[in-house]
Amino acid sequence: MRNIKLTIAYDGTDFSGWQAQPGQPTVQGALTDELEKLTQRRLMIHAAGRTDAGVHAAAQVVNFKTQAELAPEEFQRAFNALLPPTIRVNAAEEVGPDFHARWNALAKRYQYRIYRGLVVPPFVWKYVHHDAFELNFDAMAEAARLFLGEHDFSTFAASSGSEEDDRERTTVRTIYQSEWSRVPASSSANPDAEEWVYIVRGRSFLRHMVRKMAGTLVEVGRGKLAPDDVPKLLALRDRSKSGMTMPAQGLCLESVEYPDPANSLAAKEKYREALK
Amino acid sequence: MRNIKLTIAYDGTDFSGWQAQPGQPTVQGALTDELEKLTQRRLMIHAAGRTDAGVHAAAQVVNFKTQAELAPEEFQRAFNALLPPTIRVNAAEEVGPDFHARWNALAKRYQYRIYRGLVVPPFVWKYVHHDAFELNFDAMAEAARLFLGEHDFSTFAASSGSEEDDRERTTVRTIYQSEWSRVPASSSANPDAEEWVYIVRGRSFLRHMVRKMAGTLVEVGRGKLAPDDVPKLLALRDRSKSGMTMPAQGLCLESVEYPDPANSLAAKEKYREALK
Repeated sequence: MRNIKLTIAYDGTDFSGWQAQPGQPTVQGALTDELEKLTQRRLMIHAAGRTDAGVHAAAQVVNFKTQAELAPEEFQRAFNALLPPTIRVNAAEEVGPDFHARWNALAKRYQYRIYRGLVVPPFVWKYVHHDAFELNFDAMAEAARLFLGEHDFSTFAASSGSEEDDRERTTVRTIYQSEWSRVPASSSANPDAEEWVYIVRGRSFLRHMVRKMAGTLVEVGRGKLAPDDVPKLLALRDRSKSGMTMPAQGLCLESVEYPDPANSLAAKEKYREALK
Repeated sequence: MRNIKLTIAYDGTDFSGWQAQPGQPTVQGALTDELEKLTQRRLMIHAAGRTDAGVHAAAQVVNFKTQAELAPEEFQRAFNALLPPTIRVNAAEEVGPDFHARWNALAKRYQYRIYRGLVVPPFVWKYVHHDAFELNFDAMAEAARLFLGEHDFSTFAASSGSEEDDRERTTVRTIYQSEWSRVPASSSANPDAEEWVYIVRGRSFLRHMVRKMAGTLVEVGRGKLAPDDVPKLLALRDRSKSGMTMPAQGLCLESVEYPDPANSLAAKEKYREALK
């Protein structure tokens, strides 16, 4: 049995999220259908993060086990020929039998993009949330830092479930990076336009957690909450108390990290070579 | 009668071009429909360039005459509230009675984007043409310069029509800028990916002219034509002899230039103030 790891990108706009659901267009469904054409089997494909409807991915990681003898590059080429242009396989490699895209992930990084100009260019509107009202950047940046570290994120959880595993009952999560950056988003319409981008990196996340964190930070920017409300909200462990849940379309899974190089067969071979 | 000038952007993917056609989604049709809601009249809207189906615009310029008393910013806000997010009004101003978006344009600048990485990110595929095969950049840049100046562009014309005016029978056009640039287009998938962008600026263009010029330059890059075939092709004045017509989706109208500041009432007032 071979274990194939794919790094994929998708525009989540027209998908009901990652996870296959009967009668709904999903990323997992689309990949599974095409993989069936290639292998004649209906195989299980695991993803690092089960992104919600409308959420995008620049570098989601997935894996599946197969007896098919296609080389990884052949899988990549075949998928890219069969899939719609809204899903792309960026890279494919064969990995060790123990690699699991979700369980082995050490960290995931998400981005939430807020377009700060008056008019959102027609080329980016699907990938940003539009907010041109006054926001206090410094307060948002200060509040974001208070999410760093290990906390019980019950307040920032959806009514049910974890992004990684519904069986995982703990709501304690660890955040390694939580910061805002201002990015020039100039266009001929708005030479001074900016995007404010919230970057958050953690081992794993509860369902809707990033969108609720970002929404709470925007309420801090608006002056409805103060930065030190963040630890207070965390302490409440009450999901009715968090700030708003931001719309899905501004969110993108940017990268997934794994213990390196243990999971790559190619890397293992290189490593063995180096030991000789 | 007031004369209103709008600068607009659109994603041309889902439109059958600028020009209104019965039963087809067009940019002119969409603007005319919304303007009718605002003014209770079916008004003629003129555009600087009548872009073809699938061609995009970052800063198209249009104008219309109306007796409605809305301020330019009110037109802008109302249009942006009514139009789909694929058409945006970037700016609106009142201009002198003689201003005509097409006849007064001094120059237009187009861009043709070719994505040179192996995998086109799902966020840009609608705005680029994908070509990852070997191309000789220097030969393409050299050939592009040979389009500069005044030439009879019959070879690079569609079977009929000018972009500006079907009545205009001459096929002589003047090109002020014609060059390729390499732009980093890095993504997590392709850290080294580039876009090769053809930038062409001229007073006006024949129908399909930019796409045929770009296609001819790509054939130079491929080695099927030599740079000095460009003047030879121009001299032939035979439209069956040009290189391929590139697909519409890589093309974008980037800007339109007008005699400045004569056409802006606000600028005229400023100018009068300055004279006092």
